[in-house]
Amino acid sequence: MAQLSPTPRTTITRHRERGSTDRADLFAVLGEALVCHLGLVRDGAPVVLPTIYAVDPDGPDDGGTLYLHGSVAAPWLVEAPGQTVCATFTLLDGAVLARSGFSHSMNYRSAVVLGEVRRVDDAAERDHALWLMVDHVVPGRSGTLRPFTRKELAATTVLALPLAEASVKGRSGGPKDEPEDVAAGVWAGVIPLRLRASAVEPDADAPDDLPVPDDVRRRLAGWGAPDPG
Amino acid sequence: MAQLSPTPRTTITRHRERGSTDRADLFAVLGEALVCHLGLVRDGAPVVLPTIYAVDPDGPDDGGTLYLHGSVAAPWLVEAPGQTVCATFTLLDGAVLARSGFSHSMNYRSAVVLGEVRRVDDAAERDHALWLMVDHVVPGRSGTLRPFTRKELAATTVLALPLAEASVKGRSGGPKDEPEDVAAGVWAGVIPLRLRASAVEPDADAPDDLPVPDDVRRRLAGWGAPDPG
Repeated sequence: MAQLSPTPRTTITRHRERGSTDRADLFAVLGEALVCHLGLVRDGAPVVLPTIYAVDPDGPDDGGTLYLHGSVAAPWLVEAPGQTVCATFTLLDGAVLARSGFSHSMNYRSAVVLGEVRRVDDAAERDHALWLMVDHVVPGRSGTLRPFTRKELAATTVLALPLAEASVKGRSGGPKDEPEDVAAGVWAGVIPLRLRASAVEPDADAPDDLPVPDDVRRRLAGWGAPDPG
Repeated sequence: MAQLSPTPRTTITRHRERGSTDRADLFAVLGEALVCHLGLVRDGAPVVLPTIYAVDPDGPDDGGTLYLHGSVAAPWLVEAPGQTVCATFTLLDGAVLARSGFSHSMNYRSAVVLGEVRRVDDAAERDHALWLMVDHVVPGRSGTLRPFTRKELAATTVLALPLAEASVKGRSGGPKDEPEDVAAGVWAGVIPLRLRASAVEPDADAPDDLPVPDDVRRRLAGWGAPDPG
């Protein structure tokens, strides 16, 4: 499945030139975002919750698998299997300050995935999905930690969503002003924005001589944080 | 209305200790976030879209007013009035790296607002709402730009949502590991995260001698960007 094939409900109706049907763009957005906003319908009303996720492009679902998880006690996780949900991923790239209020905009990349939720019951797939979520935040960290305990696994629900029905959209570049506004000599430009890390804060209970692991160092560098020394 | 009074659907069911009923916390999250994720129900399925917004604590709706806007041609804006929608606001404050995969977490502040959408038809309120949105991104910029034209106003739909039915939740601090995991001597800590700006990019069509305005300079400083000189 090289290209995204939008359904009517994932077809972009406004600013079609900002859309993409390239699956690589979908995986790029899902790879860089940290949380998604998951929309469900509860008692007829929409509910949107921020949540961590992980992506397996080679997962068992059509188009690859998006994994979500949470406590077995969370009501939305119990209700979700079999339901259609919407997971939306947004990266803010900049504030576009134009010469008129009307032409102000944001630079961004976003993806919307719609699909029916599958509860993951297979033990190996559950374990795989949970480690993917740890590695989504800090790639490689899974290799440095003890296995999940039976009690931890029993306390956790894992859900899967196919990455088949999706749309990707974005805006980049400077303001698009009317010629008469450009001529008026008002300042305009872009403020580039990005999620960045500041200096890492080792846990108070960690021994003083424990070095910051390499996987964490790489993540800090990727997020523009100062080197922990 | 000093306190938030959650309804059953905005009552936090998991990690209640992470909830807040202080309206000041709601306005703090809404003041710092740049976009919200708006959930609607379309043909029975949830749809979640990222969108810019503005807040008027003294707006005409119960609890204050959340304003949204978009093109008159956007289908969701046409359908929304009279419907219940959910607007969710999320600030990522850090990645919490624990000594077990299970105890990994995120530090965040988030707010969920549920309510019935009102289409704003009053000309003065529409104008006010649209300038609030410009000033939400760069406070003070509204005072430096020409008025909206009749054509621009005719092309824009403005929606309002009461800030009455809402919940606020957050996590802060270090990892909460089991004593036996702490004893195992695995590194743990927090990577603080924040949306930050890099150097401003003046528009190519702007005259070279046009200084970066004071309102933009203040916003750059607030987002940790280098001084434009």
